[in-house]
Amino acid sequence: MSDLHQPPARARRRRRPGIYLLSPAGAIIEPERLERARANLRKLGFNCTLDRTATAREQRFAGTDAQRLAAFERALRHPADIVMATRGGYGISRLLPRLDFRALADSGKRFVGHSDFTAFQLALLAKTGAVSWAGPMASYDFGGEAVDELTADLFVEALSGQLEILSFESPDSDPVDARGVLWGGNLALVTALVGTPYLPKIRGGILFLEDVNESAYRIERMLLQLLHAGILDKQKAIVLGRFTEMPSSPLDQGYDLTAVIAWLRGQVRVPIVTGLPFGHVPLKATLPVGAKVGIATQDGMAYLVLQEHHHHDHDDPHHQHDIASA
Amino acid sequence: MSDLHQPPARARRRRRPGIYLLSPAGAIIEPERLERARANLRKLGFNCTLDRTATAREQRFAGTDAQRLAAFERALRHPADIVMATRGGYGISRLLPRLDFRALADSGKRFVGHSDFTAFQLALLAKTGAVSWAGPMASYDFGGEAVDELTADLFVEALSGQLEILSFESPDSDPVDARGVLWGGNLALVTALVGTPYLPKIRGGILFLEDVNESAYRIERMLLQLLHAGILDKQKAIVLGRFTEMPSSPLDQGYDLTAVIAWLRGQVRVPIVTGLPFGHVPLKATLPVGAKVGIATQDGMAYLVLQEHHHHDHDDPHHQHDIASA
Repeated sequence: MSDLHQPPARARRRRRPGIYLLSPAGAIIEPERLERARANLRKLGFNCTLDRTATAREQRFAGTDAQRLAAFERALRHPADIVMATRGGYGISRLLPRLDFRALADSGKRFVGHSDFTAFQLALLAKTGAVSWAGPMASYDFGGEAVDELTADLFVEALSGQLEILSFESPDSDPVDARGVLWGGNLALVTALVGTPYLPKIRGGILFLEDVNESAYRIERMLLQLLHAGILDKQKAIVLGRFTEMPSSPLDQGYDLTAVIAWLRGQVRVPIVTGLPFGHVPLKATLPVGAKVGIATQDGMAYLVLQEHHHHDHDDPHHQHDIASA
Repeated sequence: MSDLHQPPARARRRRRPGIYLLSPAGAIIEPERLERARANLRKLGFNCTLDRTATAREQRFAGTDAQRLAAFERALRHPADIVMATRGGYGISRLLPRLDFRALADSGKRFVGHSDFTAFQLALLAKTGAVSWAGPMASYDFGGEAVDELTADLFVEALSGQLEILSFESPDSDPVDARGVLWGGNLALVTALVGTPYLPKIRGGILFLEDVNESAYRIERMLLQLLHAGILDKQKAIVLGRFTEMPSSPLDQGYDLTAVIAWLRGQVRVPIVTGLPFGHVPLKATLPVGAKVGIATQDGMAYLVLQEHHHHDHDDPHHQHDIASA
């Protein structure tokens, strides 16, 4: 964890940025996807290094708890500026009490992932205030034959600080124009941290949520936990990403995500914004968890303001990315 | 909510005890099960009254939220001493902020149910300290052609105060001999209350848990939330009921409930007791949630002491129920 391997930011910008790939949760089932991910990320201009236990296996996990913890330590010693999870699954929750969040934050590395990785990102934010990136993962997003071009663009632009405004179609959103700390991620993981020291205590935040493979009643029950825990009412906006592969039942009789959102609107006065391109889908934005952002809606569109103008380099034009509906 | 309908306990014992059946959560799909339940409960010596919206339907719920809330109010006005849920599903979480727990506790009624009903029981305990009964539900446990005899016996004995000790096979339990407040129920519902005002703050308790249709990793993640929230370590014992219909995956590679329990033993010093006859299975005990109980293990058996000797009527013999393994 010496600083010797960490060249100053200015010098590093002249070289290909490095990505260190580690597997903090579920085992890698198709190692060939990681090879494709390295090739695809190389085409995007990144040098990838695969952690030596990234394809390890212990039961359903990518190696023992000790191996997965050691991977984070190796990532900190490696010169790569970006640390990306290969995939989610389940496993970070186990590691939370043993991760050195201070060292992770002090490294200045940019940690990227989603799904189970939400637990890492929120714990890092709770313990240190450090920003990390909710975004693509190597196997899931870059391991296929084709890579979603917009996902790749958004990843490159977000991490290089070029992306100022992410705009997306959001036809049934509440009116909002607010600024606050962006936080959230996978709803099940956000909810699983309630009551623990790993959930950041954020007032006036912009809470974004997505999930996969959760039925409508489970989504509602999780939102209710956030509501009854006093979390939802403290936010300036709730931004819903994609909820996919929702199991339904003949018992539902019209009860679905739309019904849940309608019901939620009756419970909270916080504006609800829909349509965020984020979740277990090929098209996903790369979002700074823990950074102050703006959110506004107008004429069926939503605008997530990631950078104020004065932050960008003067040779980058004002950069806005429109996301058409899928 | 007048006391006029509530005859003194001594007089009431001479008559058939009454059970008021209401549907606080999921819609009743097979109303004929409720008819069978009433007949079966009558054979056991109970007069059953079915709430007038017990078979109502609104989406997946047994009526609107307002209808389900009104059912609790009607139950309080009815002379029946016992209030039993017809079934679980999902729906009580929505009602929690609008239930009058003080009036419910002051009624002296004995509320019985499990699964989703856990949310009601724990909220009642958190808000008032009142004891309720984790036990059978009309449709699930009494609505079939045959009723599990032991479940019926345990229900009758527990509610009449005759059951002193519930003993069950528990071959791989940790040594324990402790007393504390019995609490818990369905793991997903216990966990969904963490961080909310509806989870009782119990130190030195005996926490019992069961669940259905949750994969091993979800069970572990829920236990981890209880662990990281500081709840598990404060208990004198964790008593595991049945975990059934657990979805498994080829990815698990040996990771299962046994692995989860082994892992949990490495995380907490609290004794873990297995084999409690409770869960989404025909054989279930009726357990006083919020009452002080004893728990002990010896020679592969566990003993849950529900009543001290001086509590029973002198004409009842010392009453112990042995549960052989299924």
